Amino acid sequence: MTTDATSTGAPPARRPRGRPGHDREAVLRTAIDLFNRRGYDATSISDLAAELGVTKSAVYHHFVSKEALLAAALDEALEGLSSAVEAASVATDGEPSSVRLRTTVEAAVRILADNLPAVTLLLRVRGNSVLERSAMERRRHIDERLAVLVRQAAAEGDLRGDVDPDVISRLIFGMVNSLTDWYRPGGPMDADALAATISSVLFEGLRPVPDGVVR
Amino acid sequence: MTTDATSTGAPPARRPRGRPGHDREAVLRTAIDLFNRRGYDATSISDLAAELGVTKSAVYHHFVSKEALLAAALDEALEGLSSAVEAASVATDGEPSSVRLRTTVEAAVRILADNLPAVTLLLRVRGNSVLERSAMERRRHIDERLAVLVRQAAAEGDLRGDVDPDVISRLIFGMVNSLTDWYRPGGPMDADALAATISSVLFEGLRPVPDGVVR
Repeated sequence: MTTDATSTGAPPARRPRGRPGHDREAVLRTAIDLFNRRGYDATSISDLAAELGVTKSAVYHHFVSKEALLAAALDEALEGLSSAVEAASVATDGEPSSVRLRTTVEAAVRILADNLPAVTLLLRVRGNSVLERSAMERRRHIDERLAVLVRQAAAEGDLRGDVDPDVISRLIFGMVNSLTDWYRPGGPMDADALAATISSVLFEGLRPVPDGVVR
Repeated sequence: MTTDATSTGAPPARRPRGRPGHDREAVLRTAIDLFNRRGYDATSISDLAAELGVTKSAVYHHFVSKEALLAAALDEALEGLSSAVEAASVATDGEPSSVRLRTTVEAAVRILADNLPAVTLLLRVRGNSVLERSAMERRRHIDERLAVLVRQAAAEGDLRGDVDPDVISRLIFGMVNSLTDWYRPGGPMDADALAATISSVLFEGLRPVPDGVVR
């Protein structure tokens, strides 16, 4: 993570120890963490300054308002998801929709795993302001790209035909988004392993692989 | 739904129209709805009384505090889930663990579908009070019964062996609990159809049934 403090080229030893958070990136990380732990409404700039061990004006030096912090956090999550979905689409151009869907699901899982705090915040947004409603709209736009792939894969006969494709989309999002409730980076399963596991459980299911069936 | 108003035997025609909520059950339903929409902390007894069109003392006649309303809501969700898991366990006594697991998952889905607002509230609880922590502990207890079945089914060879059973439990909860985000009763899919769909997607996966393989 590049921070303002390191990008100035100042030797790390000069930075006061035990008081990180003087730079923009640390302010944002701590804000996201507080918003997730206490709720956005219940967190004030004073709380954030206290948590960082700095003055309120040090926070305002980087962000003009609490909402600007929320905007930066939601942008990070949405841009990560949007770029991942776009990259998966480009990488699988011309392939069957079921392959494109699977690649997209795996890309989304990796973004969630790598940006867990910001995505957690995004998924908790309930539309209480113009900013929140705009974020929800952008999220719906990304979700819809995945839902289109589900419908196309179903139409191509590569998904089971007995479940409504829109229900399939919801169930995929349900399993993938649940990561924010339980996955913690640094454990035995990295983002790639997690992506492979989730897409395999979704597509092949929980039963043992039957003998003689190549998946 | 039985209410105090109907259980007195008074003719319904005498109840003032357009002002439901004079009875305990209606107060609780409206409180759960407000807690889910605005958040528990952001909702006051005054808000609730205003929403019901009654005085605050009319609310306090049924519940001594806001926390008593939360306690009743969480009890409803937890008792529903607990009874369903217990009934599924009794009904499948002696069967393979994978069958018991599947029956339990389906029972849990039906409870979620039938008690969506109360379960939504339960799943949002973050441990901000003794009451909330106690509810989380009871929820963990129920979750653990399902996790035991997952581990047993894996040990019996009836679940795929390449995924950690604890991860399987998380993914099952993820898909099932996501219902609170998207399922709305009264649509084309009733609770039984939803339970059958979710357990089939979990166990058999999203791919079409291969020719010649009986599932």
